[in-house]
Order: sequence, then C-alpha cells, then structure tokens
Amino acid sequence: MALELYHAGLTTCSKKARLCLHEKGLDYISHYVNLREFENHTPEYLAINPNGVVPTLIHDGKAIVESTFINEYIDEVFPGPALSPSDPVLRAQMRSWGKMADDYGLAAVRIPTWSRTKLAAIDALKESNNLDAVVARIPLMDHRDKYRQIAAGGFSEKEFEDAYAKMDFVYDRVELALQEGGPYLVGEMFTLADINMLPFIDQFAKYRPQLIDDGAHPQTKAWLDRVMARPTVVKVYNPSDEAPARPPARSQSAA
Amino acid sequence: MALELYHAGLTTCSKKARLCLHEKGLDYISHYVNLREFENHTPEYLAINPNGVVPTLIHDGKAIVESTFINEYIDEVFPGPALSPSDPVLRAQMRSWGKMADDYGLAAVRIPTWSRTKLAAIDALKESNNLDAVVARIPLMDHRDKYRQIAAGGFSEKEFEDAYAKMDFVYDRVELALQEGGPYLVGEMFTLADINMLPFIDQFAKYRPQLIDDGAHPQTKAWLDRVMARPTVVKVYNPSDEAPARPPARSQSAA
Repeated sequence: MALELYHAGLTTCSKKARLCLHEKGLDYISHYVNLREFENHTPEYLAINPNGVVPTLIHDGKAIVESTFINEYIDEVFPGPALSPSDPVLRAQMRSWGKMADDYGLAAVRIPTWSRTKLAAIDALKESNNLDAVVARIPLMDHRDKYRQIAAGGFSEKEFEDAYAKMDFVYDRVELALQEGGPYLVGEMFTLADINMLPFIDQFAKYRPQLIDDGAHPQTKAWLDRVMARPTVVKVYNPSDEAPARPPARSQSAA
Repeated sequence: MALELYHAGLTTCSKKARLCLHEKGLDYISHYVNLREFENHTPEYLAINPNGVVPTLIHDGKAIVESTFINEYIDEVFPGPALSPSDPVLRAQMRSWGKMADDYGLAAVRIPTWSRTKLAAIDALKESNNLDAVVARIPLMDHRDKYRQIAAGGFSEKEFEDAYAKMDFVYDRVELALQEGGPYLVGEMFTLADINMLPFIDQFAKYRPQLIDDGAHPQTKAWLDRVMARPTVVKVYNPSDEAPARPPARSQSAA
C-alpha cells in the first residue's frame, strides 16, 4: 500500500506534486531523480515514465504520470482537505488553469531556466563525446531539440521574447481572475489550480520583476504573498533532505 | 436549463465536443461559428471564450471552455452512458490521452491543416488591407504568429517535419497502448480518451497514409475502423445541417 514519488525536488512540476501531497497530509516515500545526471532517461525510470519526465507517482505498484493528473488522482483517492471544488463548472475552470500551467507556465519557464541549468551537464557531455548518445535517449522530441539548441549556442532572441510574452499573458489572466473572483484562482477555495499555477507565478516574478513591481498586478502579488506563506509551501519550496538546493547555474551567452 | 454548443462543425476540437454530446444522447442548441469569417474573434464570442477558440459549451448560462474539459464536464454532469472509467488510475490515463490530443494531436494537425484552410481568408484580408487589424484581434499569441507566418509565405520545412514526427509518435503510442490493453485506449471501456484522440488519429491517416499502410500499426487501424463505424461518429464526422461541408482548400506553395 505504499505511496512513492519520483521527483526532482525544487523543479517546477515536482513542486506541484510535492505540494499536493503535503496539502493532503500524506506520507510518501521520496525518490530524488537527479536530472543533471540524466537519471530520468535510464531504462529503469522509462519503465515507469515513458516520457522520461518528472514527477511520477507510484501507488500500490501502479504508476501515474503528468503532475496535473497526479494531483487530481491524489485528490480523488485520498482523504484530507478537498482540493477540487464540488461545483463542476469550477472544476472545469480548475482544469483550465492546469492546462495553462503546462501550455504557458512550463513552456515559458523552460527557456530561461534550461538555458541556465542545462549548460554544465551539456558541456560535460560534449567534453566526454557523449552528447549525441545521451540526447538520442531522450524520449520527447521537443526536449531533444532543446538540448541540441542549447549545445549549439542557446535559444534565439525570439524564443526568449515569446517566453516573456507568455509570462505577461499568464499574469494578466491571473490578475483578471482574481479581480473578478478570488481570493483563489477559482474563487473561495484553495484548489489544485493554485497548486499547479504557483511554481510558474512564483518563478515568473524572478525572471520578470516588473510583473510584480509595475503595479498592474496587485491581486496577483497579494495572492502570491498569501500562498507562499502557507506552511506547506514554505516546506516544499525550500531546500530540504527531500529537495536539495540546486547548484548555481550559469547563463548562456547573450543570444 | 438550456444546453448550447458554439462550435465549428467538422474541425477537430468541435468534433470532440459534438461527439461527446451525441454519445451521451443529449439535445443541445447548435451555434455554428464560421472561422473563415473570424466569428470566433468578435467581441460577442470573446465574452464567452476569451481565447477566441472553438468550441464553447453554455450550460444554464455558464460558459465552459476547452474541449477536453467540456467533455469531462458533460460526462460528470449529465446522465447517459458513462464515458470515464471509475478506476482513478484509468481516469488519470484517460486525462493523459486528453493532454496528448492537445499537445501532439492539435499541434501536429494545425501545420498542414492551417496551411491549407486559412489561405483564402488571409488572401482576402490582404486584398482589403485588413490583415494586420484582424490578426491583432486574435487573443492567442501563438495563433497570431501562425496567421502572420501563413501570410508571409507559410510554415517552414522543419515545422512540417516536426508535425509529421508528432503524428508518428502518436501512432506509436496508440499502437503500444492497444497492444498492451485495448480494445479501447484505456482498456475495455470506450471513454473520453477515444473521443478526444479520434479526430487526430483519423486526420493523421489522411496526411500520412503510410501510418495505416505500412503494417506497423495494425491495432490502431482496427481501432480506427471500429470507432469510425459507430453511428454517433458517422453522424458527427459527416456534413450535416449542424456541420456544413468545408469549402475546398488550396495548399501553400512548397515550403
């Protein structure tokens, strides 16, 4: 009856699943997957997650993949505070935020983040002549492409601009939702929408401080301050035994 | 207590929602949104769907967006045959297929489809000097970009290659799932996974007949034949009063 989470600690999608487990008050066995060592592309890991991405939840021996659906699974199966609204209209809205986290959140954060965090590993692979072999083992073509791009000099200026435009779009949509409703993304209740969007809203503020500073997103700033102060978030978003601090990363040269 | 669907008939995501409604045996008021006339970007339509995409479901005056979540909403709220498994593990798998329909299905089909279907409207806009104004009203930046690309000569060879690679990836994953399980995508039961993936598996076979002909996807071919023969699918996937035949489209010049 074990519950196990394979995750990469302080990375965005791993924080989504870890926060959900902590909000539900569940005990689980933590398996840290070191992305810098490409542990997510080993045959053993691909056997539980054919896409070679983190996190993966194992419950009673069965693997559940995709952090958004892991979280919906956790909320459906386990006791603890409900994290989905009972109103189906609000539940559909919650799911749309989950999709926004993927389509805009993850897509946007990956450009500035990967351009910093993947460089050291890629340089080491180049030096040992292992780059092509390691990249060829990556299951998702989009990820292979991005590794090759970083190895070849990095993302284009247009890709950075698109990523920043996505961040602005997300902040505008969040602000609108909070101004029309709130205090949480789908209304009165703290839900999976907040859990799934948090790593991106938090990270975007670091890449684009103007989103917080320019006064155009006051409700988003208040939401971020409020949610980041939750004891579960403090625990999950800070370095710990389960989620070691990541080594300092260097940036790609100016595109 | 009305149920209304705003949709674009025989386009992929509209077929998803229409098929779900027909499978549940629900009556609804059909509103055809003419994409060639940009009716999905009018202020009236944006009031119910801020992304300016189809379909949108209206139930008791409330708008539900995103075809995947529209379908989950319909299945949760209305009587009729269940289209989601009761086992939460299978439900998570069903949701992952919904995400694959978006991330690979829609992303892949859009390149060859838009390069054909949008040309006439874009040429007419160019001729009347309205292109910039109309494109500026499109809410999603990715859609604006694609319109501008088509207007400027079309998608690149790399974009077509990526789209075809995504189609191959989807067929391989579908084949694997059906060989390990079946007869439907998440096992014994016909679910939203089948409904949400169908327009893409069907359309991919038209763009890449080798996916069906080369003998590498026998279970996928059998699944496609079986699902396409359902009376609801015959009704939804063929031209009708609700879903008029689309005018013949011409192709962009070779990229």
